[in-house]
Amino acid sequence: MYSVNTIWDNIDKVRGSGPIVHSITNYVVMNSTANALLSAGASPIMAHAKEELEELIKISGSLVINIGTLSADWIESMRLAASIAAANYKPVVLDPVGAGASTLRTETSLTLLEEGAVSLVRGNASEIMALAGADVATRGVDSCKDSSEAEISAKALAKKYRCIVAVSGCVDVVTDGETVYNITGGSDYMPLVTGMGCIATAICGAHLAISEDSFAAAVSGMGCMAAAGGLAEVASNGPGTFSVQFVDALHNVTENDISRLVEVRVV
Amino acid sequence: MYSVNTIWDNIDKVRGSGPIVHSITNYVVMNSTANALLSAGASPIMAHAKEELEELIKISGSLVINIGTLSADWIESMRLAASIAAANYKPVVLDPVGAGASTLRTETSLTLLEEGAVSLVRGNASEIMALAGADVATRGVDSCKDSSEAEISAKALAKKYRCIVAVSGCVDVVTDGETVYNITGGSDYMPLVTGMGCIATAICGAHLAISEDSFAAAVSGMGCMAAAGGLAEVASNGPGTFSVQFVDALHNVTENDISRLVEVRVV
Amino acid sequence: MYSVNTIWDNIDKVRGSGPIVHSITNYVVMNSTANALLSAGASPIMAHAKEELEELIKISGSLVINIGTLSADWIESMRLAASIAAANYKPVVLDPVGAGASTLRTETSLTLLEEGAVSLVRGNASEIMALAGADVATRGVDSCKDSSEAEISAKALAKKYRCIVAVSGCVDVVTDGETVYNITGGSDYMPLVTGMGCIATAICGAHLAISEDSFAAAVSGMGCMAAAGGLAEVASNGPGTFSVQFVDALHNVTENDISRLVEVRVV
Repeated sequence: MYSVNTIWDNIDKVRGSGPIVHSITNYVVMNSTANALLSAGASPIMAHAKEELEELIKISGSLVINIGTLSADWIESMRLAASIAAANYKPVVLDPVGAGASTLRTETSLTLLEEGAVSLVRGNASEIMALAGADVATRGVDSCKDSSEAEISAKALAKKYRCIVAVSGCVDVVTDGETVYNITGGSDYMPLVTGMGCIATAICGAHLAISEDSFAAAVSGMGCMAAAGGLAEVASNGPGTFSVQFVDALHNVTENDISRLVEVRVV
Repeated sequence: MYSVNTIWDNIDKVRGSGPIVHSITNYVVMNSTANALLSAGASPIMAHAKEELEELIKISGSLVINIGTLSADWIESMRLAASIAAANYKPVVLDPVGAGASTLRTETSLTLLEEGAVSLVRGNASEIMALAGADVATRGVDSCKDSSEAEISAKALAKKYRCIVAVSGCVDVVTDGETVYNITGGSDYMPLVTGMGCIATAICGAHLAISEDSFAAAVSGMGCMAAAGGLAEVASNGPGTFSVQFVDALHNVTENDISRLVEVRVV
Repeated sequence: MYSVNTIWDNIDKVRGSGPIVHSITNYVVMNSTANALLSAGASPIMAHAKEELEELIKISGSLVINIGTLSADWIESMRLAASIAAANYKPVVLDPVGAGASTLRTETSLTLLEEGAVSLVRGNASEIMALAGADVATRGVDSCKDSSEAEISAKALAKKYRCIVAVSGCVDVVTDGETVYNITGGSDYMPLVTGMGCIATAICGAHLAISEDSFAAAVSGMGCMAAAGGLAEVASNGPGTFSVQFVDALHNVTENDISRLVEVRVV
């Protein structure tokens, strides 16, 4: 049974061990996800050249693949990176940004899932539903549906690809296909800042790098976001100040903040 | 006759309807323009892969093309995107970043204009003058000449390509080739933050998505920038805090702020 | 002999003359380095298309090459840009991000150094040691070793390639291969913000653009960072607020701040 203690334990481990997270991510969020990782105590590497993927992934603790601004040659790098990570027993986190909104995004995500090696998929409700084949009208890449809608899809996806699925929303859903956790917290400003989902994925990548238990790492990664979001909101006056305060919060959040601001429960 | 009321009406419509703005823009400003759109109530899509342009533009309300970090394959994506937008009756906004500073930028901008489909060109004085063939020494991409210098060029460009032209500067100029509006407001910090012009273009894209009247949308988009700039300046102590406060201001700006901070007049 | 006066003189010159700094840099830091340059009074151009490099470098005061997110076609652009800069007597600053962490990065950096034209290399300790052939385990791209470890390597590298080498760390090291300066200042938040090293490189690029003396410009560029870092820390509560305050500080830093916050001494 995971709890708020799981969140704090893994936050503390990330800060203590400073895992390297290799990211092949989209242009929009490269800066903000790198800053989030640094603030949380991890160490980002951003590199997509095929020639250097093997050397860099070998020194990393995990690999994050985010399909937000795809093109043909980046897809090749993502597939190669995933296979290198698998061969080196590094956990892989997939962020299927915009799956359902275009065939290219849906198919690229499914290819990466089918080729194996993905430990965790972190998406929003419409992306997870699209990948599970549910009938869903995706509205761009920032759909803010209630993630509870996606619970059935998340469980199906987790079972099919033997991975953990995390769905962010007003209430986050994290499942291994059997057990479902709901995580409550965060801030209403989060959907108003670009790449908060991508940051969640990156933070989960840091947690997977320091934990043998992917399910725990997904719960603690999402819980870390919920705590930092709640902490940041108090000092914010809009989405701009919120995004800055959020980075501070990743650095400053305490065990006590987590207890106050986050709820974890089995559904 | 457009006025400060036009600005508020369109800001309110963007917040109410949350239009999707598809952007093919430069690497430097992808994050900041996405955040500006979200804060203003719109929903950004950033995608440049030819394979997915048609699907994504069809669900969008407008298309923004920004040539700030060009390369051959991105130019192809921009031209394809513009033709898809035209076929689907979606308004196109062009930001000719650095036109006049290099032949590649000038020619790419003119190609996009000649192939039609551009509803609005938003640039600074030297870019607009370069596109109109005026003799002008462009100084990089952040020339801060008085936009009144560019009024004749703006009118000529608008007439030639049957579009609206918006020139940002100390006083903004917006014209359909006949009537010229001047918009006053903003902040001296604006030229010290990278991509404020690109953000103006993106915000105009959101306004074009919710209005049948491109001229009104260009006036209201530029007016929104002027209001948010004035509002942000009060809480700023330099270009860093200004850029954060500006994002908050896009979210918080009220009808009363616009009346206090912006002046719109026919020249 | 350089001193804190050298720092102020060059900061003041950058503000007065607004040099254009052409950057071919990595995706992660394009926005933050552009903002740092603007705040410091310089004018950034970001462009990598081979077709426009000659026109843009000719109107620039210096060229910054940063290898943080390499790929084959960008390497070609970097090499072409360096040769154009050399032919036009523009100083070139190289940031060998992640040299030592991958063969691609080490070899690309050495190629750029061997083809000449580099006036200044600005890196962290492990990058400089890797380029000098020292035995060093590079830990990703954000190693925060004491730069004094890299002093021998920095001198060797400077002699071999007849350039200035600046190593950032708790104490910065700047050398022409003979004389070594140590610069003290800055903030413990600096390693927690992505691209602070890249910003140092960009600021050095602005200082090289306004000074005939590359050694002085490297000392003043690093000294400017140390002063702005110290000034920003006072108003910060974490890495997020620090990065915003740092941009303000580049704009606001005074001669008196430099005297208070920075120490320059010959080793």
